[in-house]
Amino acid sequence: MSVSEFESLENTLEKHIPHDELKEVKRILFGKEPKKLALPACAVEAALERDFELQGYLFEASPEQLRPPRIVRIGLIQNRIVLPTDAPVLDQINALHNRIGEMVEAAAMCGVNIVCFQEAWTMPFAFCTREKEPWTEFAESAEGGYTTQFCKKLAQKYNMVVISPILEREETNNVLWNTAVVVSNSGNVLGKTRKNHIPRVGDFNESTYYMEGNTGHRVFQTQFGKIAVNICYGRHHPLNWFMYSMNGAEIIFNPSATVGGLSEPMWSIEARNAAIANHCFTCGINRVGTEHFNNEFTSGDGKKAHQDLGHFYGSSYVAAPDGSRSPGLSRTRDGLLVTEMDLNLTRQISDKWSFKMTGRYAEYAEELTRTTREDFKPNIIKE
Amino acid sequence: MSVSEFESLENTLEKHIPHDELKEVKRILFGKEPKKLALPACAVEAALERDFELQGYLFEASPEQLRPPRIVRIGLIQNRIVLPTDAPVLDQINALHNRIGEMVEAAAMCGVNIVCFQEAWTMPFAFCTREKEPWTEFAESAEGGYTTQFCKKLAQKYNMVVISPILEREETNNVLWNTAVVVSNSGNVLGKTRKNHIPRVGDFNESTYYMEGNTGHRVFQTQFGKIAVNICYGRHHPLNWFMYSMNGAEIIFNPSATVGGLSEPMWSIEARNAAIANHCFTCGINRVGTEHFNNEFTSGDGKKAHQDLGHFYGSSYVAAPDGSRSPGLSRTRDGLLVTEMDLNLTRQISDKWSFKMTGRYAEYAEELTRTTREDFKPNIIKE
Repeated sequence: MSVSEFESLENTLEKHIPHDELKEVKRILFGKEPKKLALPACAVEAALERDFELQGYLFEASPEQLRPPRIVRIGLIQNRIVLPTDAPVLDQINALHNRIGEMVEAAAMCGVNIVCFQEAWTMPFAFCTREKEPWTEFAESAEGGYTTQFCKKLAQKYNMVVISPILEREETNNVLWNTAVVVSNSGNVLGKTRKNHIPRVGDFNESTYYMEGNTGHRVFQTQFGKIAVNICYGRHHPLNWFMYSMNGAEIIFNPSATVGGLSEPMWSIEARNAAIANHCFTCGINRVGTEHFNNEFTSGDGKKAHQDLGHFYGSSYVAAPDGSRSPGLSRTRDGLLVTEMDLNLTRQISDKWSFKMTGRYAEYAEELTRTTREDFKPNIIKE
Repeated sequence: MSVSEFESLENTLEKHIPHDELKEVKRILFGKEPKKLALPACAVEAALERDFELQGYLFEASPEQLRPPRIVRIGLIQNRIVLPTDAPVLDQINALHNRIGEMVEAAAMCGVNIVCFQEAWTMPFAFCTREKEPWTEFAESAEGGYTTQFCKKLAQKYNMVVISPILEREETNNVLWNTAVVVSNSGNVLGKTRKNHIPRVGDFNESTYYMEGNTGHRVFQTQFGKIAVNICYGRHHPLNWFMYSMNGAEIIFNPSATVGGLSEPMWSIEARNAAIANHCFTCGINRVGTEHFNNEFTSGDGKKAHQDLGHFYGSSYVAAPDGSRSPGLSRTRDGLLVTEMDLNLTRQISDKWSFKMTGRYAEYAEELTRTTREDFKPNIIKE
C-alpha cells in the first residue's frame, strides 16, 4: 500500500502552482508562512544517513519592552515500527529504542529542548486485533519501566525534556492506561498524564484495553515553558484542549495514531483550531506506515477479515496561535520536525484576539452543568 | 483593491494540479467530495443576468431502515453593499432589499427551504468608524421592523425559512443588539437569537454599539430541521458551537463579516472544526467587497488613518459532520450557495465517532466551574 501512497500535500502544491498564486494559496490555507530554520549540517547528514526526513521552522513574536523573548525548540518525531509485529516483544521494543535514539540524537544536534514521540511509540498499534497477548506485554511502569529508564538517559544526556507516550501498566493492580510520561531535562520523571477520551470508532478498539484517564488536565512546568499532552482521540474534543489551556499550557502535544481512511481530512483542522481557540501552540504527531498482523481481524463494517489497520499517514505539524502552521512532515517517511517558537506569541495573540476574556465561561459552566442532568430540557423554540 | 484580489482557492487548485494528484489534494484538504447539485436552468440564467455566482452541492447519507431520509436544501447568500455608504439610509436599505430579493428568488427556483443572509445584511459594516450617526439608524425592531416585514413576505411567498441577521433596536429602551431574526416558512417570526460574543480585535469596534447577547443557545425547530445561529465572532469560541449542538441543532449558521488581513487562514478551520466536533452541519457566510467611508479612522495599529476596513473575502461554505466541506463561494463576487443535505447524516456520524458519548461532560462542568472562581488554582506540576 505504501508504494502508492501520496507523499505530501505541500510538495504537490509547491510543484504545480505558479509562484504568485502559490503565495495566496499558502496564505489562505496555512496562514503567515513560518521561516525555515537553518539546521546544522551534521543533523542534515544524520537524517540522510539514517533515512528520515528533517524539517525546521521558526515562529516569531514581536519584541516586548518588559519581557525578553522566550525561545524554545521542540522536536516532533514520527516513525514506522522497525521489526515485524510477530518478532519477540523485547526485540521490537529495543529496535524502536534504537531508532528513536538515533533520531533524538539528531534532534539534540538541532538544539531541541523538548521532544515528543508518537502515541504508544514502543509498540505496533495492535489494539485493532482485540487480542490481549502479546500486546499487553508491551505495557510498562510509567515511573520506573524499561522505556522510562531509556528516556531518562536521553533527557539527561541531551538536556532535553522527553515526552514518552506508552502503554502503561499500573503494577500494583495491573490496570492498563494510555499514558504520556514527561521526563524533565534533569533526567527526573516530572509526571505522567493519561489519555482522557478513548475512541469507539472503526478498528480503534482501545476501550478493550484501557479506560478513560484519571489525571485530569495537568500542565507541566518545564524549564522551557508550560506544556500539556492531549493524547490522540482527545483532539476531537475541544473541551479537552480548552481545559489544558485554562491550566496554563503554552504548547499542547497531541501524540496520535490514526489512519487515512478514517480521519485524514480532520487532521489539519482539529489541532489547528485548538491553537487558534486557545491562543497556544499545538503539535499533531502521527505514526507512518502500515502494520501487518499475523492473525486476521474484522472491522465491524461488513467487509472481509484483513491483517492491517490501514495506512498511518504521518503529516505531523505544529500550529500556532495566530492561525498559521508549519508544513506537515511526509505522509510516508519517518521524520523529525524541529520548530523554534517564541512563547511570547501566545500572550500577544491573546491580547489581540481576547478569546479568553470574551469567553463568558461562568455562563457556560452553568449551561454545561444543566446539560449533564438527567432532567435537562434542550432550549428549543417551536412555532 | 478588489481588482487585484485573488478570486478563489478552489479554482486555482483545479487549474494547476494534474487530475490524479488533485484527487488526493482535495481529499486531504476537503474530505469526501460532495456531488454537484443539478440546478434549474432558470436559476442559472437568473444568476448570470443578475451577476452573482451560483453553486450547488449535495451531502448524502446512508439509507436507514426505520427513518426516511430528511432532505433539506439551504441557501447561503453573500453580497457586497449596493449603494455608497453615504447614500441616504433608507435608500441603502431598499437597495439591499432589492438585491437580496432577486437572489432569494433564484434560491426559490433552486428549491431552497432555509436561506441565511450575512451578518448585519441591511447595512455597511460601519462599526469600524466608531461613529454612532448615521449607523444606529440602521437598527430595527426584530419582531416588526421594516426588514422583518420584508423577510416575512419572502418567507411566505417562497415557503422558505429566512434567517435575517440585522442590527436590532429594542424599542422600549433603545438597547441595540446584533441579532438574527428567524422567520418561519409560514411567514411568522419564529424567534430571534443574539450574538453571544462581541469582538475586541482590530477595527471590529462592535463593543461600542452593542453588548453580549442574552438569548443563550436557543435552537429553532423548523419544518425542515433544527437550526441555530452563531453570529460572527462566536465562531472563535468552541463552547458556543457546542452549546447550540447540546440543545439539538442540526445545522448551525454563522453569518459573519470579516476581512482578509485579519482572519482568512482561520476561516476554513473554525466552522469546519465545529461541524466535526459536534456532529452537525455548519455554514460560514461572509460578505464581499471593500466598503469606503467618508470620514477617515485609525486602527489602533500605529498606521495612518484610512477609509475602509479591508477586503471582505466572501468564501462562504458548508461543512459536514463527516469532515467534508463544500467548495467556497468566490472571494470577490456576490453569490448564492445551494446545498442539499440529508440530516440523517448527523446521527449516523455521531453513531460512528461518538464524541457526545465519550465527552465526559460532567467532569468538564465541574472543572469549568472551578476555573471561573476567583480562587482557581491551575493544575501545574513542577519539579
